[in-house]
Amino acid sequence: MKDINRRQAVLMTLLAPVVASAADPQKEAKVGDTDPGSYLNKMPAAWSGSEKIGIVIYEHMTPLDVIGPHYFLGRMRGAQVQFVARDPSPVNCENGLVIEPTATFDTCPKDLDVLLVGGGSSGTVAAMRDTRTIDFLADRGSRAKWVASVCTGSLLLGQAGLLRGYRATSHWAFRSLLKDFGAIEVDERMVFDRNRATGAGVSAGIDFALALVQKLRPLDFAQAVQLLAEYAPDPPLHSGTPDGAPPEVVNRVRDLVASFVEDARVLARSARPAR
Amino acid sequence: MKDINRRQAVLMTLLAPVVASAADPQKEAKVGDTDPGSYLNKMPAAWSGSEKIGIVIYEHMTPLDVIGPHYFLGRMRGAQVQFVARDPSPVNCENGLVIEPTATFDTCPKDLDVLLVGGGSSGTVAAMRDTRTIDFLADRGSRAKWVASVCTGSLLLGQAGLLRGYRATSHWAFRSLLKDFGAIEVDERMVFDRNRATGAGVSAGIDFALALVQKLRPLDFAQAVQLLAEYAPDPPLHSGTPDGAPPEVVNRVRDLVASFVEDARVLARSARPAR
Repeated sequence: MKDINRRQAVLMTLLAPVVASAADPQKEAKVGDTDPGSYLNKMPAAWSGSEKIGIVIYEHMTPLDVIGPHYFLGRMRGAQVQFVARDPSPVNCENGLVIEPTATFDTCPKDLDVLLVGGGSSGTVAAMRDTRTIDFLADRGSRAKWVASVCTGSLLLGQAGLLRGYRATSHWAFRSLLKDFGAIEVDERMVFDRNRATGAGVSAGIDFALALVQKLRPLDFAQAVQLLAEYAPDPPLHSGTPDGAPPEVVNRVRDLVASFVEDARVLARSARPAR
Repeated sequence: MKDINRRQAVLMTLLAPVVASAADPQKEAKVGDTDPGSYLNKMPAAWSGSEKIGIVIYEHMTPLDVIGPHYFLGRMRGAQVQFVARDPSPVNCENGLVIEPTATFDTCPKDLDVLLVGGGSSGTVAAMRDTRTIDFLADRGSRAKWVASVCTGSLLLGQAGLLRGYRATSHWAFRSLLKDFGAIEVDERMVFDRNRATGAGVSAGIDFALALVQKLRPLDFAQAVQLLAEYAPDPPLHSGTPDGAPPEVVNRVRDLVASFVEDARVLARSARPAR
């Protein structure tokens, strides 16, 4: 409830000394509440692990870019999933979804097994312009076991210098931008090059995460999670790629995103050196 | 940040009179922040509408069940999407995702174009036992233009009496339960019967939402959103259904959810009459 939040923000400011310890950025990041009573907790020990996963969230991002992968990564018993934001305040994602961070750039574990960032529209461009966001990605990305993006999240990795010299993919309408960031553009739904893992647009994050889970856990676990997700897709339309969609629809979507592509191209000129 | 929330909760209680107006349940529900600068705002007028969409969220639910559909429904320009919860406090979904409601059962619009509820594991069973949740679903569901569920969200619709006499689907492991709620079980990825719209497990919500968008907006809009989502799925494994997965994986997943199925079957005996 936005109004309540604003009031809370005011109260928090007035009562800052009282709550200082709770807001201490040195304090260890909390993992979001997990459900001790979940029927799914009884997974066999062979399927367990202890990965640290940081999912970066930012204003006006596209939630499905990361919530698709979150289903698969979050099902990994023992993994610690953090939703990491610039600040502790709730993040307004696209189209009305408000996510509360479980960690900030300050409290996020230093060494991640998976650093994942999704895309968006103007929110992604704003994040590309934000030095703190790019610094965070460059820092955690320089040490993470897997540096991963979905959709235009690849532009954020690119801005942080994390894709220079790597084969990578992105949303179809933005893929040609990858070379502006020093990456090698690959026209695939997912690309794994050394420890860089990039997915194509939005829904590609689901295929991509299922492949990533196979690299982190046993094959039969990945199969079980796919079965739990009933992931046997069957789209009722066939307009998911520029080749499949009617040309006038492709042109309309290209028009919609044209200035986004242009803005990102300009920003690429100030992208960081390789990490 | 959970600790901060707990402190805020205490502060809110102490300072209740100060913040009473913000918490007034009669106040109109707020729509989550939308991005006035989004590159995607320039959609043609023919693609606009004004649907009221209520996505029900509850503790320990599976976020992807509703965030898949949210991508497609949320892209409908002019639609008002609400994430509706029992209370205004943040909702701990499965595996660390915390969503902040934009409306409560009290502030949610009375007449919805789409009432959507997703599933989960123990969280869904807890919600089935919660009279306020079932009352809310029965009330809004009795008037909504579309009454929709993904995955075990169908058990919640069933508990509210909303599936009696309707053809419906659910997650494959729970589909046989539908007749316990007076529904006609259909072994399909999505089922539309009059104004009841049910999807199969988790990821089926994406196929389902794309079909629902076709019923609400022009075909070329649905095609454009599919293209924006790059929804041309290509799973790297083929274990999404019991027929496709190795038998030992199917057995293991059946074992994991066996007591969930049993608990839901018992609850079905107290399901509401038809709405």
